[in-house]
Amino acid sequence: MKSYLIAAALLASAVPALAQQSIATLPPAVVTDPRIAALRDNALENDHYAWDIVEGLTTEVGQRLAATDAEARARDWAVRRLKAMGFANVRAEPFEMPVWTRGAESAEIVSPFPQRLVVAALGYSASTGPAGITGQIAYFDSVDALRAAPDSAVKGKIVFIDHHMMPSQDGSGYGQFGAPRRQGPTIASLKGAIGIVIRSIGTDHHRNPHTGVQYFTDGATPIPAGALTVPDAEQLVRILKRGQPVTMHLTLVSQRSEGARSGNVIAEVPGRDPNAPILLVGGHLDSWDQGTGAIDDGTGIAIVTAAAKHIMDAGRPERTIRIVWFGAEEPGGLGGKAYGEKYGKQPYAIAGESDFGADRVWRFSSQLSKTDPAAYAQLTAALAPLGITRNDKGEADGTDIEPTVKAGAPWVSLNQDGTRYFDYHHTPDDTLDKIDPAQLRQNVAAWTAMLAVLSGGIEPGPKQLKRR
Amino acid sequence: MKSYLIAAALLASAVPALAQQSIATLPPAVVTDPRIAALRDNALENDHYAWDIVEGLTTEVGQRLAATDAEARARDWAVRRLKAMGFANVRAEPFEMPVWTRGAESAEIVSPFPQRLVVAALGYSASTGPAGITGQIAYFDSVDALRAAPDSAVKGKIVFIDHHMMPSQDGSGYGQFGAPRRQGPTIASLKGAIGIVIRSIGTDHHRNPHTGVQYFTDGATPIPAGALTVPDAEQLVRILKRGQPVTMHLTLVSQRSEGARSGNVIAEVPGRDPNAPILLVGGHLDSWDQGTGAIDDGTGIAIVTAAAKHIMDAGRPERTIRIVWFGAEEPGGLGGKAYGEKYGKQPYAIAGESDFGADRVWRFSSQLSKTDPAAYAQLTAALAPLGITRNDKGEADGTDIEPTVKAGAPWVSLNQDGTRYFDYHHTPDDTLDKIDPAQLRQNVAAWTAMLAVLSGGIEPGPKQLKRR
Repeated sequence: MKSYLIAAALLASAVPALAQQSIATLPPAVVTDPRIAALRDNALENDHYAWDIVEGLTTEVGQRLAATDAEARARDWAVRRLKAMGFANVRAEPFEMPVWTRGAESAEIVSPFPQRLVVAALGYSASTGPAGITGQIAYFDSVDALRAAPDSAVKGKIVFIDHHMMPSQDGSGYGQFGAPRRQGPTIASLKGAIGIVIRSIGTDHHRNPHTGVQYFTDGATPIPAGALTVPDAEQLVRILKRGQPVTMHLTLVSQRSEGARSGNVIAEVPGRDPNAPILLVGGHLDSWDQGTGAIDDGTGIAIVTAAAKHIMDAGRPERTIRIVWFGAEEPGGLGGKAYGEKYGKQPYAIAGESDFGADRVWRFSSQLSKTDPAAYAQLTAALAPLGITRNDKGEADGTDIEPTVKAGAPWVSLNQDGTRYFDYHHTPDDTLDKIDPAQLRQNVAAWTAMLAVLSGGIEPGPKQLKRR
Repeated sequence: MKSYLIAAALLASAVPALAQQSIATLPPAVVTDPRIAALRDNALENDHYAWDIVEGLTTEVGQRLAATDAEARARDWAVRRLKAMGFANVRAEPFEMPVWTRGAESAEIVSPFPQRLVVAALGYSASTGPAGITGQIAYFDSVDALRAAPDSAVKGKIVFIDHHMMPSQDGSGYGQFGAPRRQGPTIASLKGAIGIVIRSIGTDHHRNPHTGVQYFTDGATPIPAGALTVPDAEQLVRILKRGQPVTMHLTLVSQRSEGARSGNVIAEVPGRDPNAPILLVGGHLDSWDQGTGAIDDGTGIAIVTAAAKHIMDAGRPERTIRIVWFGAEEPGGLGGKAYGEKYGKQPYAIAGESDFGADRVWRFSSQLSKTDPAAYAQLTAALAPLGITRNDKGEADGTDIEPTVKAGAPWVSLNQDGTRYFDYHHTPDDTLDKIDPAQLRQNVAAWTAMLAVLSGGIEPGPKQLKRR
């Protein structure tokens, strides 16, 4: 730490922009209310609500793919748990949607070097049927290389798109390097490919494929679309480098049917002022089907719910806190859309979503930087002791709150460290053991502090008064 | 480094046993022949033979389960490659054995919390047939707890054995904590269990099950036997802790048939003295079927072969170096037995085997410490610059050379750092990307130095003389 301070001092003396400002020009000092600091620090040290939720949900339900029976069991579990925790207005709000489920999956190199690779279908992949398909591999090192290729290079073949995603703290590579998954199948289909496999959109080196959603747009006929694990994609590249034509037999059996049901689960900490704008916090209840959805997004719903519970334990906030465990986020944010259509126009004080794992919050940003600088300064002060820096240029974050934010709700983003998030994201490896309990508590502390700052004040209820 | 030296000095002054010895009492100084040092250091910096072998074998053949067509392709590949490298007397020596292969595998919790777990059959597991079996889980936290249990606690159930294996540098936990795999199925069967699943004998937290061999002894009827991944075993423990009876549906389809073929592949660097005792070095060519056998044991055969090639590049050793790529090690060292029966009684100067991954050699030991202290001192000196310490209490190491060592061959063990070995061992994750090329070169340098020291002297051949 000492050398860090010295480095900072040297930097400050070398770089005029960081030169010391006159104290007279500084904005007013902001000090966190000691009751808020105490709530935050108690969560940081003692929270067990979040762990109990994510441990319970992943153990007693496990995976909960959108619109399946497993997701319905998860909703039942959620309603029971949220009621047991003492929240008000707990209910599930179902909606209809199609259901897509995975069947048998395999990929074999037929020639020149017969061997099996590990593959998983992408969401909404067409099915090969149990017999599978066989085709020559057409290699592209990016989705743009595929776009630029003539149809003749692709027609009748199985496209393989490689890429070079690396870990980053803010997860920003997912946008660019996720394109093979999101756009690749449609482009390959439009050019006449019979199937597509991509290098998993992931940063690990394990034999766990990363699934994820994609849609066929622009009138493209659905084709079988899968993700090879990173080691298998690298193996395929080595095989291709030998220079001989490579033939693959690909089996991706899957099923899609209409008229299934998902749903959101909603719970509240009622505010003293029922007309005050609402504090909306959420994450998603559904998960992909191969892991247990521990970090995507068991921890997200656990974190925001634990934070609301810490506020409720302290008394009654002026503003209502609404917790939403959104359904069917993975296939395209359907729960968020259903919520937005129904409740998007209500008045909100803030909307925030936790859906990026359970590693520590390292940065935050909020629309309040522009609309309510005093509240933003309070948030900055309350979050700083947790090692969280403010980001004045941040943006709204979260698929599920997006429709509500678009309808006008002010947003807050508490950004988690995503360095290792894409090692596990959408894989069988998204399991409870990937959660660091200490970092999970730091998340709860951050959300507790945020809610406390924006609560409009928490008045001890009869229960809390009696305790004292 | 400095604080390390200070600590060592403090320790030396505090502990009389480490007090400085009089120089007059030291054994004679041992200095490595500069030609040997140069060979070693060249391998450390420039070796590419080992990488080329393991990259080639794992890419162009992939997995090579004992007695399968894939292992036969691997033998063909081996003969071609060893001939192309210029070795003499290259040949495959086949032998008969049964073949066991894996089919469909799954494990589902039926109640109380329906969900799928990830499982792999252990070698020689009985088959459940495609319909699978269903039974209540009987939990034991060690193989001894199972042994101590009354038959009534097990009869008609599916046994689950947990354990607590942790990583260690010398891999010594594999003996004790491997017992659930080696003995568990037999004990469970004798007590009337209908099947058994164990926590994978592994130190990672990925959804990759660790397979491995086991036999049914003591007249036990073969039963289905599988390994759950470590995260799945932990999940099952959490489910069991809820206190309700847990029912599992287990499907492990496998097949066993007699009269298949494996084989050893042998190659030599002929010595100037054909009657001099032989330097025997080896590893195993076969692998388990789910990874590509990169670190188990592609690197082993690559390391010893690269070392022999470095000696051959330098000229002709007095003693013949014999390289053996043993077949069918995984199902029980069958290649080593076949070799020992045929060649065990030949005179050997040394026998060594590399079969513990590709991380750095950190320690060595040898029977020469007792039978040829001068050679042992030379080995000590030649290996020390690679950071390798001698272990006067070491033991012979290696399933494949064991029959030959038992027949009288002196042994040398170059121990690799096994801290992360059991993260990947016998899993789908045993792939090329797990190899650190720099540590692989250090292995080659160590084996090159060992062979050079014990070669009886390397005389430049016509090729080498011409080059100068």
